[in-house]
Amino acid sequence: MALYKRGRQSFVPEHPVVVTKWASIAGKKESEGPLASGFDQCCQDTYFGEKTWEQGEKRMQQMALTTLMEKAGLSNGDIDMLFSGDLLNQCIGSSFTLRNANIPHLGLYGACSTMAESLLLASMAVGGGFADTVVAMTSSHFASSERQYRFPLGYGGQRTPTAQWTVTGSGAALVRPHGKGPRITAATVGTVTDLGIKDASNMGAAMAPAALATIQAHFRDLNVHADHFDRIFTGDLGAVGKEALLSLARREGLSLGGKLEDCGCLVFDAKKQDVHAGGSGCGCSAIVLCSHLLNQLHSGKWKRILFCGTGALLSPTSTQQGLPIPGVCHAVCIEGET
Amino acid sequence: MALYKRGRQSFVPEHPVVVTKWASIAGKKESEGPLASGFDQCCQDTYFGEKTWEQGEKRMQQMALTTLMEKAGLSNGDIDMLFSGDLLNQCIGSSFTLRNANIPHLGLYGACSTMAESLLLASMAVGGGFADTVVAMTSSHFASSERQYRFPLGYGGQRTPTAQWTVTGSGAALVRPHGKGPRITAATVGTVTDLGIKDASNMGAAMAPAALATIQAHFRDLNVHADHFDRIFTGDLGAVGKEALLSLARREGLSLGGKLEDCGCLVFDAKKQDVHAGGSGCGCSAIVLCSHLLNQLHSGKWKRILFCGTGALLSPTSTQQGLPIPGVCHAVCIEGET
Repeated sequence: MALYKRGRQSFVPEHPVVVTKWASIAGKKESEGPLASGFDQCCQDTYFGEKTWEQGEKRMQQMALTTLMEKAGLSNGDIDMLFSGDLLNQCIGSSFTLRNANIPHLGLYGACSTMAESLLLASMAVGGGFADTVVAMTSSHFASSERQYRFPLGYGGQRTPTAQWTVTGSGAALVRPHGKGPRITAATVGTVTDLGIKDASNMGAAMAPAALATIQAHFRDLNVHADHFDRIFTGDLGAVGKEALLSLARREGLSLGGKLEDCGCLVFDAKKQDVHAGGSGCGCSAIVLCSHLLNQLHSGKWKRILFCGTGALLSPTSTQQGLPIPGVCHAVCIEGET
Repeated sequence: MALYKRGRQSFVPEHPVVVTKWASIAGKKESEGPLASGFDQCCQDTYFGEKTWEQGEKRMQQMALTTLMEKAGLSNGDIDMLFSGDLLNQCIGSSFTLRNANIPHLGLYGACSTMAESLLLASMAVGGGFADTVVAMTSSHFASSERQYRFPLGYGGQRTPTAQWTVTGSGAALVRPHGKGPRITAATVGTVTDLGIKDASNMGAAMAPAALATIQAHFRDLNVHADHFDRIFTGDLGAVGKEALLSLARREGLSLGGKLEDCGCLVFDAKKQDVHAGGSGCGCSAIVLCSHLLNQLHSGKWKRILFCGTGALLSPTSTQQGLPIPGVCHAVCIEGET
């Protein structure tokens, strides 16, 4: 019955699914990183003009949405469906962004995999003929994350070498059934995978097994291998997690063909910016996708990428209760304009 | 292009979408309520055999999933896609349920609207031809919610008359493109609606405007009115919120035709069970849907219902920062077997 299902975990949309526009808003540290020139706006104020970091994160998502709508020449009232989520407890970054905005909203929690998850669901909504104008969006904020997951910033806690730096940023993509732009041609839903890592300061290693499982599933379901892609991007494994993934892949006999890159390694200059193992957070893969990656597909530099959003499904409660960190990864295949 | 879109916020699935099986697991207080006989299992231990309430909530979801799979004669390996979420920070109830379970998982955050949200997305996945065997699932737990959102239980805080009692329960529904069972024939995605209620002990009133907006949107998009349905069920407005919704509807000139019922009012006997304004939580509408409602559709007592999951999108952080409580409501039209 399911005509567009491929293998167990994957699907190809029936109708064309085009990412017609994208927008990225970044914070101060991100504006000092190697990808700065691709972001639509960078803000030097960590509060984004609001009174709290949480409300600042909301403001950042609003800026991403407004920029996206301006680029598309649309207004909020044109949006049929918006998929979004974030890292804050009860996803208040996303809910307050859309408060009384009159936009049909489906809330997600996929931790740092949310950009890929929202894009996957947007491609289902558009590709299945259920909606015409769909937005996929997410955000993260260093300061709101740090105090929620770890310590108050004023405490000045030491960071371990495997720790990552939560990106302050928001990315939004507009998905439509027609128009010019990169196309989503396949997607793979990930399983919750956990090899027992308990160190909340080493989320890259915790997420690497999920990334491997999803890349393997995508290759198997779509009957492709690494050569099919110009690049394979993981979301925020960072330097430690990327090495862990390469090592796990070797052990499984899976070749990634030198195609693997990680948004967490790209967004900061690890040597100069004191971010230890790299960037992380929902905003990490979101702002890299909604600038560098979609720009390169748009310009024709790349023909096809596999965008693999990675999420660490921990909470301070589960960590305090001594539980390990489950990971998840969703993959979306995006191709350049034909 | 979007053939199955109706109006702005709604869609009708292309292919048949059948809820072939459903399962509900309930806690002690729920087992003493008027719907007890419909639940598949009731557990008298608030820890569900685990060490913590959070892990107990996970165990409850696992029980719902296992019961569902047994009823369907399927195993976890047969599930193509599972949509779930819960109220715990970072949705650890859902993530830990699926840890290493080898089930493709898309995590949601829709607060107490999650049962309707997961069912809506499952109907999109199956109705669009992307998956064959999809599970929609959620849970809530009185004790894990109370200590996360309000006070430690041992503190013995007084409850206001408008307060609701979080249901301890988990519901799961299996959605497939064929088979016998009630069918999902339309769905409406809600907008985040907020009239400025700031009292976190009066979530029913905070959610009522969202319920009204979504019911109005469903009626408008599908060109139907209250007479089209045998019953209209809101998720967990409770007695106060239900009255608020009726009052708002009257003011808008919208007739609900005496069809409105609320799962939060049905799940407990408010007079005998000391639950003040009624039940709430993701588990509230989930266990009422996955017992009483689907059973009545299955038996032919009702021909068509509108199931409206209601969610209050607050967090302790937003409440402490003095912000109001945005609400959301998603609606799914379910029809009896033909």
